[in-house]
Amino acid sequence: MGKGAETRGAILDRAVALASLVGLEGLTIGRLAESLDLSKSGLFAHFDSKEGLQISTLERAAERFVDVVVRPALAEPPGEPRLRALFERWLRWPQAVPQPGGCIFVQAAVELDDRPGPARDLLVELQKDFHRTIARAVKVAVAEGHLSKDVDPEQFAFELYGLMLTTNHSSRLLKDPRAPQRARRGFERLLQAHRP
Amino acid sequence: MGKGAETRGAILDRAVALASLVGLEGLTIGRLAESLDLSKSGLFAHFDSKEGLQISTLERAAERFVDVVVRPALAEPPGEPRLRALFERWLRWPQAVPQPGGCIFVQAAVELDDRPGPARDLLVELQKDFHRTIARAVKVAVAEGHLSKDVDPEQFAFELYGLMLTTNHSSRLLKDPRAPQRARRGFERLLQAHRP
Repeated sequence: MGKGAETRGAILDRAVALASLVGLEGLTIGRLAESLDLSKSGLFAHFDSKEGLQISTLERAAERFVDVVVRPALAEPPGEPRLRALFERWLRWPQAVPQPGGCIFVQAAVELDDRPGPARDLLVELQKDFHRTIARAVKVAVAEGHLSKDVDPEQFAFELYGLMLTTNHSSRLLKDPRAPQRARRGFERLLQAHRP
Repeated sequence: MGKGAETRGAILDRAVALASLVGLEGLTIGRLAESLDLSKSGLFAHFDSKEGLQISTLERAAERFVDVVVRPALAEPPGEPRLRALFERWLRWPQAVPQPGGCIFVQAAVELDDRPGPARDLLVELQKDFHRTIARAVKVAVAEGHLSKDVDPEQFAFELYGLMLTTNHSSRLLKDPRAPQRARRGFERLLQAHRP
């Protein structure tokens, strides 16, 4: 990786952290420049518009999500171990790639749901893609005999998303320290309900 | 109810609908005035600041939520019927009290989680209060023998919140028409897992 790409990556990591706090709408080139102690004009060379910055930030977050959640989880043995790794890594994702305001995708989902445009289109594609990743991991767990043949993989992904969203809600808004523990209990119950 | 209170209620209903789309931060007195075709100065007589408007809007939403979700559900027979009514009415809440951008509380939770202040404090109180309402309904269902004595009512509320949040996410962002149906399947599984 060249120095240019490295710098760009570091800038975007900061953008991800900042957007987790102020939202993609609050993420302006001026604000990012200030937080990095760089000149605004220097950043304009990287991102030609606010929308360009939003899209690059989402792309970076997705890239990091694959790095710290998806790829290592898929390296685990197929079936339940892989599914568990996916869940555990997902749970720790806002710490693994620092997002002091909680998962950037949860933030972006609420911000962009009513704003048609390329940023929304990208987010939808990323979220659908992750739904498919979960559903595939569930299918593999069925094939391995770890989960029942009756499991609906998309329903499983839908419910697993719910566990993540309620964990984010309880820990971010309600400041409930038991949130991760509750998430794990919910996950065990979800697996339990779908045993062969 | 006097004419003044009625007018104020109608204004705030519009504020709830608008905030569901543009967020509590996007909800300005100017924007609300425009959407109601009223003068800005007329609205300032009702709400002296943007924060005052945000708080009044959350209070109005909470009042309407009690009207269309909590109170009618609590009028149902204790136990499973009451829990089902709570769930079904909650599911239809963004239509029952028009919120074209989806549940205002989901929107507000993500906006306010990192913004200390009276609006956040109010939202946290409202959300905790609803968590307690669910937990109480679960305890009653246990007492009625409809759910197992081993149920952790707070865990149940945590997971039920997850179902609602993933439903909002799937229908608002991903535009998945099967979201309510998936929510109902998830709810049945949640009940099923906690039968005596």
